[in-house]
Amino acid sequence: MYKLLDQRKCVSFLITFFIFSFGYAQKNLLVLQTDFGVKDGAVAAMKGVAMQVNTRLQVFDLTHEIPAYNIWEAAYRLQQAAPFWPAGTVFVSVVDPGVGSSRKAIVLQTNSGHYFVGPDNGSFALVAAKMGIKAVREIDEKTNRLPGSQESYTFHGRDLFAYTAARLASGRIRFEQAGKLLPNKIVMLNWQPAKVENNVVTGMIDILDIQYGNVWTNIDEKLLAAIGVEKKDSIDIDIFYQDSLRYTGTMPLVNTFSDVPDQAPLAYFNSLMKLSFALNMGSFSQKFGIASGPGWTLRIKKK
Amino acid sequence: MYKLLDQRKCVSFLITFFIFSFGYAQKNLLVLQTDFGVKDGAVAAMKGVAMQVNTRLQVFDLTHEIPAYNIWEAAYRLQQAAPFWPAGTVFVSVVDPGVGSSRKAIVLQTNSGHYFVGPDNGSFALVAAKMGIKAVREIDEKTNRLPGSQESYTFHGRDLFAYTAARLASGRIRFEQAGKLLPNKIVMLNWQPAKVENNVVTGMIDILDIQYGNVWTNIDEKLLAAIGVEKKDSIDIDIFYQDSLRYTGTMPLVNTFSDVPDQAPLAYFNSLMKLSFALNMGSFSQKFGIASGPGWTLRIKKK
Amino acid sequence: MYKLLDQRKCVSFLITFFIFSFGYAQKNLLVLQTDFGVKDGAVAAMKGVAMQVNTRLQVFDLTHEIPAYNIWEAAYRLQQAAPFWPAGTVFVSVVDPGVGSSRKAIVLQTNSGHYFVGPDNGSFALVAAKMGIKAVREIDEKTNRLPGSQESYTFHGRDLFAYTAARLASGRIRFEQAGKLLPNKIVMLNWQPAKVENNVVTGMIDILDIQYGNVWTNIDEKLLAAIGVEKKDSIDIDIFYQDSLRYTGTMPLVNTFSDVPDQAPLAYFNSLMKLSFALNMGSFSQKFGIASGPGWTLRIKKK
Repeated sequence: MYKLLDQRKCVSFLITFFIFSFGYAQKNLLVLQTDFGVKDGAVAAMKGVAMQVNTRLQVFDLTHEIPAYNIWEAAYRLQQAAPFWPAGTVFVSVVDPGVGSSRKAIVLQTNSGHYFVGPDNGSFALVAAKMGIKAVREIDEKTNRLPGSQESYTFHGRDLFAYTAARLASGRIRFEQAGKLLPNKIVMLNWQPAKVENNVVTGMIDILDIQYGNVWTNIDEKLLAAIGVEKKDSIDIDIFYQDSLRYTGTMPLVNTFSDVPDQAPLAYFNSLMKLSFALNMGSFSQKFGIASGPGWTLRIKKK
Repeated sequence: MYKLLDQRKCVSFLITFFIFSFGYAQKNLLVLQTDFGVKDGAVAAMKGVAMQVNTRLQVFDLTHEIPAYNIWEAAYRLQQAAPFWPAGTVFVSVVDPGVGSSRKAIVLQTNSGHYFVGPDNGSFALVAAKMGIKAVREIDEKTNRLPGSQESYTFHGRDLFAYTAARLASGRIRFEQAGKLLPNKIVMLNWQPAKVENNVVTGMIDILDIQYGNVWTNIDEKLLAAIGVEKKDSIDIDIFYQDSLRYTGTMPLVNTFSDVPDQAPLAYFNSLMKLSFALNMGSFSQKFGIASGPGWTLRIKKK
Repeated sequence: MYKLLDQRKCVSFLITFFIFSFGYAQKNLLVLQTDFGVKDGAVAAMKGVAMQVNTRLQVFDLTHEIPAYNIWEAAYRLQQAAPFWPAGTVFVSVVDPGVGSSRKAIVLQTNSGHYFVGPDNGSFALVAAKMGIKAVREIDEKTNRLPGSQESYTFHGRDLFAYTAARLASGRIRFEQAGKLLPNKIVMLNWQPAKVENNVVTGMIDILDIQYGNVWTNIDEKLLAAIGVEKKDSIDIDIFYQDSLRYTGTMPLVNTFSDVPDQAPLAYFNSLMKLSFALNMGSFSQKFGIASGPGWTLRIKKK
């Protein structure tokens, strides 16, 4: 045996090692989002399937506390977190009231190089709008289903999505092997884009920062600049639910919470650089009964 | 030094590397379940202990939201998730009202090659029934206790179970070193097995799929087939708490939720292939006041 | 090329590999604590930033359920869990009502070799007291801020703390590169140290073990020994909120819960070896309306 190991062999061994080592260097990331909660074993079953595929995957939770069946919030949370992850990260999102129906099971590849695996029911609408659609494939259940799960109809999160995503993240399959190419579009959601007209900015309340009761809109800095609002200026705000006025008030646009006294209202740009409202050390949404979603709109004027 | 490195040395170095690399290839998995919740530092202390043993372990949560002291649910969640994990995975389950009492601290090895570490109080009854007992060992506190924790009596989860499980998962000890061999049995729980008699299937409600309010029984497909029920057939269902009738109704056996209208009841096989009841887009358990556990039984007839 | 590979080269390649392998051997640990909850994408954004820095970091959660703005509890949870983690572990704690104000952003190095990254607002008071301050540095926002986040003022957890901590944990920067050295002190909190006087032990209620309703004090074994209390002895306990008596009772000092009947009160040493009170299989804090924090004090006498 030693005779076989001339320097040539030694070199190829070393090259093998290098390649092997680079395999390690690129760790593969899998991020899971569901509306399952974490009180039962469902999320753990998904992670077990991922570990069956490859024990070296790094698996993370985005959140499992999406309110049951709330596709808008699933879409929102993905676009809130995904841009902060490296290209190549594979996200699974399972908020799937239509499991077993004709809704498609897809893998979306964005222009940013991220992958999104789950039902095509609007959950990917906001990441598609933000990061751009590069390609969409329909998961081929014949080749990409957890072996032995054919009789199970109600847990695609485990049997189809976690399995396919783990295989994609670990390089067991390439994106091309996920299934057949679909046209470059996905199911979208209705929302009211922010705009400016006659010195009034209109938009919607995307979501609440629930832990603190802050109200996050879809209005960015450029629109406020367009009506001449700068930091330290005050703005007049009307919030509507459908056509009924739910809040009217005036508050300063500041950098951060501690720029106003405790319990005072403030407007600020949140961590996604969108206009938001809060009470310093209090809950704006609770005090004024404000919620979020397509029905909640607002109008902003410079004071 | 270079003179020492003849080709023989080079070979043994390379062999060492191969072995080392295989060490990496087999990542060791540790999965934790408790009734501690995640609001304090207890689970994190357990993970810290695991990291003291070996920083390369992959540590996962099954759930930490088992209701306090609920051994039945601990047992159920383990058998729900564990079969989806690779052989060799080490599970810790700490729902341990008898900590410090005479209940035994054990490691259970199942025929499937999984390990379960925790108190022998019934928590492992369902995985033992499902996956088979290969061997049981009593943890030897002299050799398998976190050094320095001898004065601590109330946190075996950290001092004994996480420590021993991490050492087992990382190969620091072999199963044989966990402690002395016990007889091949563990503490079991009472439950009503599903059966068929006179064209009536009887069984129990194992658990609720709490996030959605679905009701999961212990009845499998074969029993329904034995009374001639096929997909699309309707079935009559009576649910009892102890001897009192709590629900009676008729519903179709379908593949998935979207096979019936919103708010309509349906029967289906869940992700563990057990008969379950739900309201499409609603909560069956909440609407009809149904709970789960040994007291909740049911009778099924073909309509 | 083969000619180049004489034995000398082979040796240096192998040495490189060894070094590389040791790099693997020391996995770098990052532990996150916040008051963000896990219902939204904020924690996941922090983890994404850490993965942008280095995909091989091991990232853990201490808890994200610190009550909003509760700095005392943030401090308590850190000192509860951190001592069980290996030296070199980097902790991030973001309970940060003063984000954007003049409070300092720091990295604390303790004598135990752990690192704590976050706002200097008292969150690190208890780990500093327990583990000792080795050095404190103020994070230099010019060199240690997530590129592209300069316009974001309200999410230092992601833009400054997770980024800096991940760079420190992965060896991308050394501690010395975090920023300029500060004096060896941090913002402290007020608390009532436990003491003994005239055969009476006084102290405070540090925290509740909320999952079970147990009451944890800051009194250790030595103080009880000083008034002659041993295991099995009974003690008289008065609990005050400010100056008003909220509970008075007598209970035995035992090793563990199952040493008393169900629902009976007991005193025991908790997993941090501090005197604690509980009802076996019940909730002491709920039954007697006991909470925790600076206002809650107690007096203990031997019965």
